[in-house]
Amino acid sequence: MTAHTPPTAIEWVGELDGYIAILDQTLLPTQVATLQCREASEVADAINRLAVRGAPAIGIAAAMGVVLGVRNASDTDRGEFLARLDQTCRLLRATRPTAVNLSWALDRMATVAQADETLSVAEIKTTLLAEARRIADEDAAMCRAIGEAGQSLIKDGAGVLTHCNAGALATGGCGTALAPMYVAHELGRRFRVYADETRPLLQGARLTAWELTQADIDVTVLCDNMAASLMASGRVDLVITGADRIAANGDVANKIGTYGVALLAHAHGIPFYVAAPSTTFDLSMPTGAEIPIEERGADEIRRGFGRQTVPDNVACYCPAFDVTPAKRIRGIITDRGLIEPVRRETINAVLG
Amino acid sequence: MTAHTPPTAIEWVGELDGYIAILDQTLLPTQVATLQCREASEVADAINRLAVRGAPAIGIAAAMGVVLGVRNASDTDRGEFLARLDQTCRLLRATRPTAVNLSWALDRMATVAQADETLSVAEIKTTLLAEARRIADEDAAMCRAIGEAGQSLIKDGAGVLTHCNAGALATGGCGTALAPMYVAHELGRRFRVYADETRPLLQGARLTAWELTQADIDVTVLCDNMAASLMASGRVDLVITGADRIAANGDVANKIGTYGVALLAHAHGIPFYVAAPSTTFDLSMPTGAEIPIEERGADEIRRGFGRQTVPDNVACYCPAFDVTPAKRIRGIITDRGLIEPVRRETINAVLG
Repeated sequence: MTAHTPPTAIEWVGELDGYIAILDQTLLPTQVATLQCREASEVADAINRLAVRGAPAIGIAAAMGVVLGVRNASDTDRGEFLARLDQTCRLLRATRPTAVNLSWALDRMATVAQADETLSVAEIKTTLLAEARRIADEDAAMCRAIGEAGQSLIKDGAGVLTHCNAGALATGGCGTALAPMYVAHELGRRFRVYADETRPLLQGARLTAWELTQADIDVTVLCDNMAASLMASGRVDLVITGADRIAANGDVANKIGTYGVALLAHAHGIPFYVAAPSTTFDLSMPTGAEIPIEERGADEIRRGFGRQTVPDNVACYCPAFDVTPAKRIRGIITDRGLIEPVRRETINAVLG
Repeated sequence: MTAHTPPTAIEWVGELDGYIAILDQTLLPTQVATLQCREASEVADAINRLAVRGAPAIGIAAAMGVVLGVRNASDTDRGEFLARLDQTCRLLRATRPTAVNLSWALDRMATVAQADETLSVAEIKTTLLAEARRIADEDAAMCRAIGEAGQSLIKDGAGVLTHCNAGALATGGCGTALAPMYVAHELGRRFRVYADETRPLLQGARLTAWELTQADIDVTVLCDNMAASLMASGRVDLVITGADRIAANGDVANKIGTYGVALLAHAHGIPFYVAAPSTTFDLSMPTGAEIPIEERGADEIRRGFGRQTVPDNVACYCPAFDVTPAKRIRGIITDRGLIEPVRRETINAVLG
């Protein structure tokens, strides 16, 4: 990671005997420390405790974790190799249930491992490392394409509000929601990013603010409840957020608070955009109403950052996501281009 | 303070040689500890560091602080007494600049001290203690009247959302926004309160949740950015917040985030009410645009939870208040009755 470029959340260092370097996001923004994972169990632990997070980055971590899990298997015992492969995939799959990229990446690795029976175990190991790197490279390319598709929305002098972290730290490249900002910055445009701190886990304050600063992009943090006041002051020209899942009609599930931001943007006549790779669309979901919403533990609110802030005997409402209806979304910025307006037909036209 | 009643934020204990008991709100919700203030400087310190907060409670603290400041003056030297009075008022006035109740209470105490030149210094001291207690009693009565005026809005089975703390902890009685809830609870109505945690200082999570629990009222805490999702789920039937200042046209300045909650309520067809004593109206302000909005220090966001959550070199946007336009307010619940709809004429009819 050099100054003025987005940070790298995860990468494979060296050859088959190398390691996975993971930027430990639990320590940001006050400490920048890299984990070196040499065992699959270390990768599982890193995913579990959110040292690496964001659906695309988790997929990459899992794919690379498979390589760590099998590389020490005997080169002469195909049975042992396949047993280790299966064991590793099960370990990694159990880390987090929601991110579709995790199981998608593990399935892809398992398929590659068993695609060509003429390969030796040693050759398969090399193939798996290449595949894991390809998953990372493809993700980086999708991020870049999202950035190119969305950069023209960010005019010189603009104020851009974002929510949570859908940036380099969440992906193998320059992010999704933040990708248009990185590209606009490269093009010399001057603008200010406003980052909602994003309770309860503060990904906006801790991660978005930090990574934009690394790239020398002007960023200001606000509490989530200050967005309406900021919009009323005229300082927000557009909003861009990421997405966790997009239904066939364009309804978007994303980090809790996104729906509120979309309503506030609408009330102030500010365009609200979502940025996501084409893989985030789930056309099996007719509308957002079908998307399951994970409820998180109360302690994320009650004991967020070293201090208890809610009495023990008080319940907390803690959904991890909400659903923004398509009618409140001006456009969806994808690696295949901008979908605007957001309707079943325009989505099909771009994805099909 | 007994179970099932609202807690007491501040009270004078004993006679002229007594003390002020202040519930230290900086320690809530994990510790319930009472400060015993016997010097005016201790009261100034308690106000400064938010051990006592909320405009009405600060006014009461200041009035009682005046008694502490003068009670040890010589009973035979009127000059010394008046010098101490002046000194104490200046000390207390300098603690916090915004709350209008602070200077109002100090002016009232100074006027009483000098109203009757036939009184001895000893008699004036007794009069001042009686006046400070009267200010507290009057505030409690206004709270009660607000509760009576607003209780019928809370139907059996209702979900009521509130923001920040405009409760017993902020006043000399049962609060403003929370007063209708206490009265409805006394009347046996069952309902659920949803308390926004209210970043950055978390008065909803720390204070509102705690005090409602003391009174055995059902309360659930949510992060500010979860209010839209909660409203969409159909669980919020009405919103009641407090007010820091109300302009002649009904625009309301209140804790940051109130405006956003009002917009979200409007988007979901949920009535949004403000509760405030008649003294909160400032008819010298034609509209909310004239109300000055205090900008707070970035560290309230950056280091709010005991741990740094925003990088040092990143700016924060941190207004303490926002303004909700009258057209987004269904009604204002006052000690003189309910103002609904909110217009210059209906305000004048109730206040005049």
